[in-house]
Amino acid sequence: MRATWKVNFTETVVFGNGAINELPDLCDKFNAKNIVIVTDRGIKDAGILQKVVDTFDESYQTFVYDRAVPEPPVDSAVECLEEAKNYMDVDLIVGLGGGSSIDLAKVVALLLRYGGEPADYFGEHKVPGPVAPLIAIPTTAGTGSEVTSVTVLTDVKNKMKTGISANELRPKVALLDPELTLKLPAYVTACSGIDALSHALEAYTAKDAHYIDTDDELLFQGGNPISDALALQAIKYIFEGLVLAVNQGSNIEARSKMLMGSLLAGQAFSNAGTAAAHALAYPLGGIVKSPHGELTGLLLPHVLKYNQPVIKEKLATVERFICPESGVLSEEEAGCRFIERVEQLLEEIQLPSSLSQIGVMEEDLPEVAEKALTIDRLVRNTPRVPTKESFENLLLSAL
Amino acid sequence: MRATWKVNFTETVVFGNGAINELPDLCDKFNAKNIVIVTDRGIKDAGILQKVVDTFDESYQTFVYDRAVPEPPVDSAVECLEEAKNYMDVDLIVGLGGGSSIDLAKVVALLLRYGGEPADYFGEHKVPGPVAPLIAIPTTAGTGSEVTSVTVLTDVKNKMKTGISANELRPKVALLDPELTLKLPAYVTACSGIDALSHALEAYTAKDAHYIDTDDELLFQGGNPISDALALQAIKYIFEGLVLAVNQGSNIEARSKMLMGSLLAGQAFSNAGTAAAHALAYPLGGIVKSPHGELTGLLLPHVLKYNQPVIKEKLATVERFICPESGVLSEEEAGCRFIERVEQLLEEIQLPSSLSQIGVMEEDLPEVAEKALTIDRLVRNTPRVPTKESFENLLLSAL
Ligand SMILES: [Fe+2]
Ligand SMILES: [Fe+2]
Repeated sequence: MRATWKVNFTETVVFGNGAINELPDLCDKFNAKNIVIVTDRGIKDAGILQKVVDTFDESYQTFVYDRAVPEPPVDSAVECLEEAKNYMDVDLIVGLGGGSSIDLAKVVALLLRYGGEPADYFGEHKVPGPVAPLIAIPTTAGTGSEVTSVTVLTDVKNKMKTGISANELRPKVALLDPELTLKLPAYVTACSGIDALSHALEAYTAKDAHYIDTDDELLFQGGNPISDALALQAIKYIFEGLVLAVNQGSNIEARSKMLMGSLLAGQAFSNAGTAAAHALAYPLGGIVKSPHGELTGLLLPHVLKYNQPVIKEKLATVERFICPESGVLSEEEAGCRFIERVEQLLEEIQLPSSLSQIGVMEEDLPEVAEKALTIDRLVRNTPRVPTKESFENLLLSAL
Repeated sequence: MRATWKVNFTETVVFGNGAINELPDLCDKFNAKNIVIVTDRGIKDAGILQKVVDTFDESYQTFVYDRAVPEPPVDSAVECLEEAKNYMDVDLIVGLGGGSSIDLAKVVALLLRYGGEPADYFGEHKVPGPVAPLIAIPTTAGTGSEVTSVTVLTDVKNKMKTGISANELRPKVALLDPELTLKLPAYVTACSGIDALSHALEAYTAKDAHYIDTDDELLFQGGNPISDALALQAIKYIFEGLVLAVNQGSNIEARSKMLMGSLLAGQAFSNAGTAAAHALAYPLGGIVKSPHGELTGLLLPHVLKYNQPVIKEKLATVERFICPESGVLSEEEAGCRFIERVEQLLEEIQLPSSLSQIGVMEEDLPEVAEKALTIDRLVRNTPRVPTKESFENLLLSAL
């Protein structure tokens, strides 16, 4: 049993419609005048980049790098920084976009402060100390990257997925403006929104931090009262917002709830960790082209059913938090009602509910189970200890 | 209507039995070897100071200032820093104790970084930037000072209570070890515990941040989804832990719940703010010698009743969160049930439930109401706008 646990937070969160107008003031707190904005072409074409650039008056210098791509190649970070440094002395990095722009911005802030190659920092806990000031502005509601300590990158040299994870990479400021998310297409809203729900539910049902079975220093600590509080609220917001956000993209209240939900989920899972749904989604992502959220969402009800025997109280609590009337149900009944609610949500946002629908075949399952079991940080968080057989059965149930 | 709100957090929270053993590692993250410990005689005499000092090996230098007193005179900060600087180059400040030791440590960290006199910073938002590294180790469960941005001080020259409040004063690390709280006397446990409940409930029921009626930069922002999530969980922990902690001081689970509850309440109220119970408690504190928590606790049910018409949903949510069976009650009934629960708690921890019991007289009330109304930051947070008359009636009901 571990006696202690630790949580880390982004120091400042600013939230609300028009919040981007506070960006210059936030830069001032770091005495920063020379600002690099890391973003992607989609954000530029949608006019969001211009809105952000326009918040700065002539007393600031901005340099824009708009070539972030999903799972950004590590060379992008080097390239961005070289170009920016040729142009000015860089004070502060802004990550503007989905998870990939913000992830890339984290690496740029790291290299700006400590130099070297991205590869020097691959893995966990390899960042020597605080990185350069970093402000994250998400334009999707899902990854929670604006408050997390992880990055997903592509190691170009070795042609594989990699990452740098360290508490020091957590942005100092998360600036969340629901108006920036109004134009997201329905399918992107659905996939990223259900991923946020997966983050919240996997964090909320993660094994208690005291029982995580390792003496290593952990990025993903297991469940604790703070992550529980945040995850529970996240789940409520997502249930209130997701169907509307998908079906009425311009509904600002729904967008606001989703951005809030994914923020809270990010705060929760970046400390507690995610678990089986994410462990299984990663190898599945190597087989089919589905977005990450489509996979974690599809798996979610099956993972909840698998864990159900050991998370009954938690499932009942979340059901009753969402729906006070479920207070009359037994713990068991309330938990079942909640899992049905997740299934119904998937249907209402029109995401696939079976692996065969997205092209996964039965013969793929053993390898997926095997690979998932190797992802220690997620497997040890799973409240009901998985085996190859139980993971295969779980996948079969989702087929 | 305000479009945006902001929350600020202590970056790192470490929690658990024996957590103090992680202090040297936490200092290492700041490359700090020369550590000032700010504490008081009670903590020294209880052997807690020695435990903390013993966590450091000979590669660290520590300087102990053990003369913190309640509402510390600002000269203490100057004195502490002068003595410490004569002894070594100071890298990091540790505040160890109740609210006053930690408050004093905040001022020491401020002066270490920016020099000058404490009086230069009296009020809100006068701190120019990040202060020296500060780790807070609370030994009581109540003030939440380990994660807040406020200090309560005595201005010796002008013989009055004063304070320095700024987000930059928030400790970088809060280190919470329930074992340090095992020896707290029952009465101190009760007063500080009920104060933590007041923080959580006043934050949870504070007016929504969007409706706080001022354009000023705010320390107390009003309610928001993050403070709600934390406050709600805080209330649950305090209800689970307080009666046991008061009546079985050595019950480590109960102590742990209380320390957790006061931490969560501190995170919530240092952003959302407190409200009427605190506004009224301050002038009452000038009339009678009751500890702060005794006053806020005594007022709490009356403040809830006063606000009840405009916080029905919130009261029902918190009641149902604590007691799922209350899901069958109407919103109105659940809210009333919750207020009874607070009254019952006060009784079970043997705190006074009327102002006359502690020596307040009817003729004192008008002045108390009047003075309370001048505390803008708390009055504007009160969900049902108070007047002199309504405050007087509230106080009369508590007489
Ligand atoms: Fe995910
Ligand atoms: Fe208080």
